Amino acid sequence: MASEDSWKPSGIVTLLSDFGLSDNYVGQVKGVILTLAPEARLVDLTHGVPPQDVLEGSFQLATAWEAFPPGTVHLAVVDPGVGTERRAVAWLAAGHCFVMPDNGLGTLVFQQQPPELAILLDREEFFRRPVSRTFHGRDLFAPIAARLVSGYPLDALGTRIDPHSLVRLDVEPVRRVGNRTTGPVVSIDHFGNCRTLIRPEHLPSPPERVVVRCGAARIRGIVPAFGAVPPGRTLAVFGSHGGLEIAVREGNAARAWEISRGTPVEVIAEG
Amino acid sequence: MASEDSWKPSGIVTLLSDFGLSDNYVGQVKGVILTLAPEARLVDLTHGVPPQDVLEGSFQLATAWEAFPPGTVHLAVVDPGVGTERRAVAWLAAGHCFVMPDNGLGTLVFQQQPPELAILLDREEFFRRPVSRTFHGRDLFAPIAARLVSGYPLDALGTRIDPHSLVRLDVEPVRRVGNRTTGPVVSIDHFGNCRTLIRPEHLPSPPERVVVRCGAARIRGIVPAFGAVPPGRTLAVFGSHGGLEIAVREGNAARAWEISRGTPVEVIAEG
Amino acid sequence: MASEDSWKPSGIVTLLSDFGLSDNYVGQVKGVILTLAPEARLVDLTHGVPPQDVLEGSFQLATAWEAFPPGTVHLAVVDPGVGTERRAVAWLAAGHCFVMPDNGLGTLVFQQQPPELAILLDREEFFRRPVSRTFHGRDLFAPIAARLVSGYPLDALGTRIDPHSLVRLDVEPVRRVGNRTTGPVVSIDHFGNCRTLIRPEHLPSPPERVVVRCGAARIRGIVPAFGAVPPGRTLAVFGSHGGLEIAVREGNAARAWEISRGTPVEVIAEG
Repeated sequence: MASEDSWKPSGIVTLLSDFGLSDNYVGQVKGVILTLAPEARLVDLTHGVPPQDVLEGSFQLATAWEAFPPGTVHLAVVDPGVGTERRAVAWLAAGHCFVMPDNGLGTLVFQQQPPELAILLDREEFFRRPVSRTFHGRDLFAPIAARLVSGYPLDALGTRIDPHSLVRLDVEPVRRVGNRTTGPVVSIDHFGNCRTLIRPEHLPSPPERVVVRCGAARIRGIVPAFGAVPPGRTLAVFGSHGGLEIAVREGNAARAWEISRGTPVEVIAEG
Repeated sequence: MASEDSWKPSGIVTLLSDFGLSDNYVGQVKGVILTLAPEARLVDLTHGVPPQDVLEGSFQLATAWEAFPPGTVHLAVVDPGVGTERRAVAWLAAGHCFVMPDNGLGTLVFQQQPPELAILLDREEFFRRPVSRTFHGRDLFAPIAARLVSGYPLDALGTRIDPHSLVRLDVEPVRRVGNRTTGPVVSIDHFGNCRTLIRPEHLPSPPERVVVRCGAARIRGIVPAFGAVPPGRTLAVFGSHGGLEIAVREGNAARAWEISRGTPVEVIAEG
Repeated sequence: MASEDSWKPSGIVTLLSDFGLSDNYVGQVKGVILTLAPEARLVDLTHGVPPQDVLEGSFQLATAWEAFPPGTVHLAVVDPGVGTERRAVAWLAAGHCFVMPDNGLGTLVFQQQPPELAILLDREEFFRRPVSRTFHGRDLFAPIAARLVSGYPLDALGTRIDPHSLVRLDVEPVRRVGNRTTGPVVSIDHFGNCRTLIRPEHLPSPPERVVVRCGAARIRGIVPAFGAVPPGRTLAVFGSHGGLEIAVREGNAARAWEISRGTPVEVIAEG
């Protein structure tokens, strides 16, 4: 807990939510931020997280934040517990600042980069009044993000808490033991592609010389691109999200191989 | 009509339309604005208003504009009458400037905040030439919004008209008489949640001590959040849009209770 | 090839892709650009191009770029050949700079404005490392766009190639011969409206005095707006994209008249 609060903003705030784009919620959040921080640069990560799907939110956040410079504020709101006792928090990792409900939304980022410093957002004088019971994205998280991008130190906005106390979802991390790397499917897109956080540096041997197992599927070798196999064939590939993906070209891998979120993936060095 | 044109831009332009995001229309509007006002900050409210649904556009505008600072330009285009005789207008309310076709799109904002000053956009020298018959968002409204955010006074861009002459849709306003508050359902989202503009300050008694009636539904008390009732139960709650909402948790209130837009909602102080 | 590289950025980067908005891909591309060019203004044209539909991408680009000021960088990624031998290129036309895979995505812009100068993006020192095999939008094109909007000359970022060597799709251009103008349907929207690039200035006679033929449809006169005909009637109109469009009011013209992409449209001056 001796971590220093040496926060230096880049001027960018990213936004991630399950608000969708049919209603004006994202616009309202941006209005509140720009009212307090007129110079902030706002970038949407996605607002298409399925309603209240905290794990998918965590996946979208974990696969995007590193494309931004240190000093970026990441405002993430997938918040089924809004209006209940769940905590509102902000935390630092690798020079980035994350603002969110403390419900596990940070889980997959924590696996990449442990949080160095965390605060409870308990200073109501920084909230937008009155605070809606259902829209903390606008009334609580947006004003905090605005202050952070304006250069307020985290310590000015809340009370230090132990970063280890931040809520984590029960998701197996990627692990390599000898000639075997494992990690679960963490996201399935609407094409049925099954996505993990296993990266090239986790592999036990070169991508051509592994066997990948997931659900009922057994795949020899990781190909460089979808185009490397004929339509209908199952493949393993490093997807655009950066991690290993199990797919069927022009098909649905999740359905074909009975894969769901949490299904373990094994990558084994061949013979 | 003695209102002063004391317009001071915040630098922000919000955009609302029924253009959707599959085509490049929103991008074109932004290109025209940034050509004329390179420093403008552009924020989308939503472009998912159902095609030509002026009332839903008005709802989305009325529930978002107050999240922005005074001096914001709100460019709203839901324009079934484009290319006909309908007027193009700009008007001021509470230090915000609204630019739109004069077809009722301002209706629900007017109920919150009467327009103080209005102009007819009749100065063709400010339009983008040639003016398309079908895309005034780009050719007429965007250049006007760009001038407004650049600091042009309204009077420079058109001719004063009586703010009372602006077109209003026939929507009952929220009214409180004695122990009874009434207001219509003005928007139904795709979950079947039925949204009104009745706000906490309109209630005849504390939220726990009211009865809400809408269509065939009769609900005792307004709960603080969806989570307060079990799945399948009908509830009344102040929604994220700021107003009272009739919903069925994990269900469709509009269908269950035969509610449609315009259905009156009554909130009555209990016994 | 003696063209001068007199590139002067406007500060704006537009983005067009088939990435959709459910995943964080667009956000990642923006993060990379803002890391390198913190002052860039980013504007989405659309990310709703159907997956890998290069011609529709070309249509969306060709109908939007002219709404932006000269000096704008247009980053367009519809890239079925990513990870294969297809070239990555940047080229100048009318003072705008286009950055894209060399797969025909520029086709319909070339028909409006021949490219004056083109470079092959072959300087790996400008790429983001490591370069993903499937996401050149983020790792190759975004860093180049960031340098261009920061003022790097094109020649610093790659090797000159003959602009005539840029890949073109086989799409008939708009042609006028005597009293007859022809051009193909290049895009069909989800309402079944059939869109061409035939503009008012291409017509052989005034819009009221032409006959339009497309598929099984034969239409007398071009009307100023959809509202000019009753529901169910087939019409020809200059659409919001700027070109001639064949539509059925409240119906589906493509289905009704057996029109598909590539179907020729003829506009003939009447007797």
